[in-house]
Amino acid sequence: MQRIRTNEVQAHLGERAKMAGWMHNWRDMGKFGFLVLRDGAGTFQAVLDSEAEMAKLRGLQFESVVEIEGVITPEPRAAAGAELHDCQITVLSAVLEPLPFEINKKELKPGLDIFLDHAPLGLRHLQKRSLFRISAEIMAGFREYLGQQGFVEIQTPKIVGSATESGANVFRIDYFDRPAYLAQSPQFYKQIMVGVFERVFEIGPVFRAEKHNTARHTNEYVSLDLEMGFIQDHRDVMAMLTNVLRYVFDRVRQVRKQEVELLKLRVPEIGPSIPDLRLAEAQQIIFERHGEDCRGAPDLEPHQETWLCQYAEEKLGSEFLFVTHYPTSKRPFYTMPDGQDPSVTKGFDLLFRGCEIVTGGQRIHLYEQLLDSASKWGVHPQDIAGYLQAFKYGMPPHGGFAIGLERLLMQLAGLTNLRETTLFPRDLDRLSP
Amino acid sequence: MQRIRTNEVQAHLGERAKMAGWMHNWRDMGKFGFLVLRDGAGTFQAVLDSEAEMAKLRGLQFESVVEIEGVITPEPRAAAGAELHDCQITVLSAVLEPLPFEINKKELKPGLDIFLDHAPLGLRHLQKRSLFRISAEIMAGFREYLGQQGFVEIQTPKIVGSATESGANVFRIDYFDRPAYLAQSPQFYKQIMVGVFERVFEIGPVFRAEKHNTARHTNEYVSLDLEMGFIQDHRDVMAMLTNVLRYVFDRVRQVRKQEVELLKLRVPEIGPSIPDLRLAEAQQIIFERHGEDCRGAPDLEPHQETWLCQYAEEKLGSEFLFVTHYPTSKRPFYTMPDGQDPSVTKGFDLLFRGCEIVTGGQRIHLYEQLLDSASKWGVHPQDIAGYLQAFKYGMPPHGGFAIGLERLLMQLAGLTNLRETTLFPRDLDRLSP
Repeated sequence: MQRIRTNEVQAHLGERAKMAGWMHNWRDMGKFGFLVLRDGAGTFQAVLDSEAEMAKLRGLQFESVVEIEGVITPEPRAAAGAELHDCQITVLSAVLEPLPFEINKKELKPGLDIFLDHAPLGLRHLQKRSLFRISAEIMAGFREYLGQQGFVEIQTPKIVGSATESGANVFRIDYFDRPAYLAQSPQFYKQIMVGVFERVFEIGPVFRAEKHNTARHTNEYVSLDLEMGFIQDHRDVMAMLTNVLRYVFDRVRQVRKQEVELLKLRVPEIGPSIPDLRLAEAQQIIFERHGEDCRGAPDLEPHQETWLCQYAEEKLGSEFLFVTHYPTSKRPFYTMPDGQDPSVTKGFDLLFRGCEIVTGGQRIHLYEQLLDSASKWGVHPQDIAGYLQAFKYGMPPHGGFAIGLERLLMQLAGLTNLRETTLFPRDLDRLSP
Repeated sequence: MQRIRTNEVQAHLGERAKMAGWMHNWRDMGKFGFLVLRDGAGTFQAVLDSEAEMAKLRGLQFESVVEIEGVITPEPRAAAGAELHDCQITVLSAVLEPLPFEINKKELKPGLDIFLDHAPLGLRHLQKRSLFRISAEIMAGFREYLGQQGFVEIQTPKIVGSATESGANVFRIDYFDRPAYLAQSPQFYKQIMVGVFERVFEIGPVFRAEKHNTARHTNEYVSLDLEMGFIQDHRDVMAMLTNVLRYVFDRVRQVRKQEVELLKLRVPEIGPSIPDLRLAEAQQIIFERHGEDCRGAPDLEPHQETWLCQYAEEKLGSEFLFVTHYPTSKRPFYTMPDGQDPSVTKGFDLLFRGCEIVTGGQRIHLYEQLLDSASKWGVHPQDIAGYLQAFKYGMPPHGGFAIGLERLLMQLAGLTNLRETTLFPRDLDRLSP
């Protein structure tokens, strides 16, 4: 008999069927019992009334894996509108040790550290796994939209020979007795690939050896990267970002209804464009509204990002806000300076519900200008020879951005720690599971 | 004026339009000239007959980036059925140094090492970039099919705390003064996630610190990984692999016609199933056909894989061949032994046109059996505590496989070195570009 999943019962009402999954819940009432089966798709209740069958479950802990053959019987009082009756049980995997915490309650009780120590179990919680289904949907939406827009997916190396891309700390690898490094981003490679395909994207891991353990940082995360050629300036990149985010959120809302409901997600609707402020304007607004004088500072502090998002929501009617024109001296050497005022860049950050989730901008595309900028930043041409080749042999005006997947999900879900939206986080203290 | 791409000209015949791209070819005939423009989509010819416009191109090398405004004029003799006339040129990026090799000829001349040293340029060659568009299409097809089958995409950490998954060598990282390692595969994590979603897949980098520099090995590659729960045995996994490969090849054939033609790819058509042989049977066939006695050997040598594929093509009418039941002692500790004969496993390799491209099998799902197997292999439970948790708390019978993306592409394209199907290969000698 072919197994059916819990989301397929409607097509098999009245039939004898085989189902299988985890013992999500089990109430033994003596003469009969209710078993809630959880599989990859959802949950379904089986009613047991045979002593022989019930005996098979006695002594088993929740999360034991069972197979049940039974009749899918319409039952208006059941959550799914049906139940499994006349059940025959086969235990596929018996759990004998009690669970460290309950995972069949609406909310997960344990604190973050205990949860993370037991992630292989805890991730089975219905809310938790819904979060990572949303994560998968974000990736799928990102790829689908960009595919429609002529972008080509690339996979670039994570082991790199030099560590000069930006100021961030990098992890060092012992590569056959030579030093090598873990890529902080696919930045150089995606730019090189603009020379090949014009428009490219990559979803993959990036690595940051930053020593601060904050709720907004981990040492390995998933980056949704894009780079596009033949732009006028950074505004074309901001428009593409706006469009892809709109598409992604619309898709999440449509395709992941059940998970959106379970998590009570507020999935934003993005209008034709997202408002933007220059950094200097944003700092002036902070000064006027909060009396804090950060004018002239090279970047925003986290609480200032929160203030700006409050401002954007109140005054501009948007949960998103672009901040542009950060100082050239604080952005990487490949960032395009503004034509009118070269002390600021054609770069942007995107804030969402109080937190920066994207960084991007226009890049320098002219070989001589890039050489010049690298040398000002103390980057030696021989260390980036492969990257420079692309420019020596002709690159169009281009730009791109990188979205932090876990941050986007954290903001979408209204959570406060990246470790809640990372499957198996890596930080100063955590290398396993 | 909105720029149009070379694949959009048919919709703009007779119109004045803006195009932009690389100077793929340029023939200066004195009074007029032919400029072949290459963009992300293809190539298109512009005819120049103004001295002022032609002067802008003189002194420029191929691969300079230009924008051209002109009239899209039907011209039956042109390859695209149209040409750009009455052109006005803007040079966006001038290439002044001669290219190290020609990239506008049908075939690329330079040898592999010279090509790889200049990959940022060489990858622009029309054949080369077509290969990596096929690569992108393989990934897209893999995800699309598995999405339809209820699989959930996961992204698991590449930095891991212990190096006990298999016998292969691992790269060591300096992780805040602690040792850590680069993941050889997402094996443990995808199995853990079967406990969460039943069916999961991941496409991402894997790292192997193997010291042999062969045409079939590199030290970082892209793995298409899948793991599925509630199987009967390894044959369910083999069936899923057969189905996903069939889907992928059908999609490549339909969606990437142009590239398939350019590369003269023979894209296989997969029937309802792929034939399979036990390793012992395969070795007997080799003995009988070639007189080489490898009976009892734990694995196949590359030339034996070639022989078996010749046999499969001649006798079984298939370019693919499963080889199953490798010795238990030579497979990782988590591999499920065969019920009838525990000295062999429920594992398989898939051979395609003479080379192994996939490894997979059923895994052990019972906690006690896994503990027992780990201990026989000398793997300490405390080193795999996170992994073991999943089994302690209930795992269904499951299995999966991993396809090497670059190998699959190599075999599909009839190439002989993985470095030809890897964007920026990593090996003993090569860490850049």
